Amino acid sequence: MEISEYGEFGLIKHLTENFPIKHKSTLYGVGDDCAVIDATDGKTVVTTDLLLEGIHFDLTYCPMRHLGYKACVVNFSDVYAMMGVPRQMTVSLGISKRFKVEDLEELYAGMKMACDVYGVDLVGGDTSASMTGLTISITCIGVAQQPVYRNGARPNDLICVSGDLGAAYMGLQLLEREKAIYYQQIQNGDKNAEFQPKFEGKEYLLERQLKPEARKDVVEALQQAGITPTSMMDISDGLSSELLHICTQSKVGCRIYEERIPIDYQTAIQAEEFNLNVSTVAMNGGEDYELLFTVPLEQNEMIQQIPGIRLIGHITAESLGCAMITRDGNSEVTLKAQGWNAFTK
Amino acid sequence: MEISEYGEFGLIKHLTENFPIKHKSTLYGVGDDCAVIDATDGKTVVTTDLLLEGIHFDLTYCPMRHLGYKACVVNFSDVYAMMGVPRQMTVSLGISKRFKVEDLEELYAGMKMACDVYGVDLVGGDTSASMTGLTISITCIGVAQQPVYRNGARPNDLICVSGDLGAAYMGLQLLEREKAIYYQQIQNGDKNAEFQPKFEGKEYLLERQLKPEARKDVVEALQQAGITPTSMMDISDGLSSELLHICTQSKVGCRIYEERIPIDYQTAIQAEEFNLNVSTVAMNGGEDYELLFTVPLEQNEMIQQIPGIRLIGHITAESLGCAMITRDGNSEVTLKAQGWNAFTK
Repeated sequence: MEISEYGEFGLIKHLTENFPIKHKSTLYGVGDDCAVIDATDGKTVVTTDLLLEGIHFDLTYCPMRHLGYKACVVNFSDVYAMMGVPRQMTVSLGISKRFKVEDLEELYAGMKMACDVYGVDLVGGDTSASMTGLTISITCIGVAQQPVYRNGARPNDLICVSGDLGAAYMGLQLLEREKAIYYQQIQNGDKNAEFQPKFEGKEYLLERQLKPEARKDVVEALQQAGITPTSMMDISDGLSSELLHICTQSKVGCRIYEERIPIDYQTAIQAEEFNLNVSTVAMNGGEDYELLFTVPLEQNEMIQQIPGIRLIGHITAESLGCAMITRDGNSEVTLKAQGWNAFTK
Repeated sequence: MEISEYGEFGLIKHLTENFPIKHKSTLYGVGDDCAVIDATDGKTVVTTDLLLEGIHFDLTYCPMRHLGYKACVVNFSDVYAMMGVPRQMTVSLGISKRFKVEDLEELYAGMKMACDVYGVDLVGGDTSASMTGLTISITCIGVAQQPVYRNGARPNDLICVSGDLGAAYMGLQLLEREKAIYYQQIQNGDKNAEFQPKFEGKEYLLERQLKPEARKDVVEALQQAGITPTSMMDISDGLSSELLHICTQSKVGCRIYEERIPIDYQTAIQAEEFNLNVSTVAMNGGEDYELLFTVPLEQNEMIQQIPGIRLIGHITAESLGCAMITRDGNSEVTLKAQGWNAFTK
């Protein structure tokens, strides 16, 4: 079905009518000049992400439903990274003519799933035609009783990471390789070419790339344990880059241990297959959406009792710089921000 | 200067460092996973707009500085339309390679001017490369003690409009005409062709199109007079379309008087030059960013004392439908939403 059959207001109504309001704090959602929120029960945290086709996602291998889910989750992740709880979001779309109503229904089905899983209300947005591809702009609003910033790390604090790193990047490399093979088949005149590669044994890597989750569970576990990190952020551009953000903003240095960086075995196998150094992959891969945070040394035992959290090093004085101690323990590698930089690609 | 010389984080820092924080309610601005706001002193209102090159703006005749100003103002206008005060905004940009750092400096100079004039803090955003043109996504957050919705109009309420209508649309038509002439000159091989048309006597039309203002002053005047409208919205898609929104959402009808629609003399002259019906221009032109609101009949005298507000008609029972009484007073024209619809263009 063509989008023009609905018109702008009809389309918005059609796509958003299955999003019930869940939060008392959402006083008014879609349908007026503004959404109205009661944000008097804590501090309001706000984050926004712009996703552009061809830059941030590739519809060759990213299904619309997954894209909708991921577009939400990457914003929720920023709210959790403040020790906040996401509650409302707005979604703006720029849509070119090649998209049908059914495509957008899939996109919104993914967004609805994310809203259900994370308990977030869709409260507004803006929908427009686009001359080119698909544009998705999401703003998420949450509440935090005591926001945790990037600038609070102190010398001797322990550096912690949730989950494991590098898997989403390996998933992306896999998808890009298969896409290249697929296009080669088409170029060779293979009319039966289909993008349906076999990914057995690599499901985890693909899931981390296509359907990441935000670490709501980690934030809740920390709160239940009574732990307030001294600094925190989510890992979207790679551990190395993010750790440098925390150290720069906190005016401290750090030492992390290569052998302590959490890596899934599928990531390790895939890195070897691609002839990549698995530590480099884990340090610079990006799109992990895990939490990087620091806690005071005396909370060592408390933090060890939370499953899925790995201590990877400690904060030092600023003068000592930021470095990783290699697996053999003999040398230090200065950390560099080799993370994803859209402007140099 | 090339954007890649800065990189993403350097660019954001460079562009945002001249935006001082003005509000106590802005606890933390640019530079962390989220901005942090204290929104405990009223209800929080949120609006967002997505502006795409080639759809919402044309850089042939829209200078970057004006574009930056306008992109902010259209969001502020939505906050005022709730009887709110805009306080914070986030700005996300998608930038293609043809833009230089100097272009973005101009864009941000315009945004800074808007922030200064309207007292708004820039608190965050997202900056990315784009495969195609320029994408601007702005989210504005404000506070309202008593938000005014579209759904509160009651039979016998008076319908009021601020300022005058149709000028921005005439400005757009003028610019489009001159652009067509300019392209014709280029096609004819005129190497000296420049887009510098003469616009003497039409400055008001151009200003309304290129540098619109939000009606902060009207909201303040209403508050000072102790008037709380029963319904309100801003006129971005044309009076006809917006009045239908208010009537549909309020479950009422309306009668407005053609002779009472406020029109500037430049708009009238230009409509005649283009052989357009000036009432049609004023009813459906769009991008006016004036306020449309309703007040109870007994506030008639109070509202008449506010300069620049025009009573254009009254709300009726829903069964009477929505119509305009023509200048001669003899016939009724049913209102239709002929406003701007991006999906049918």
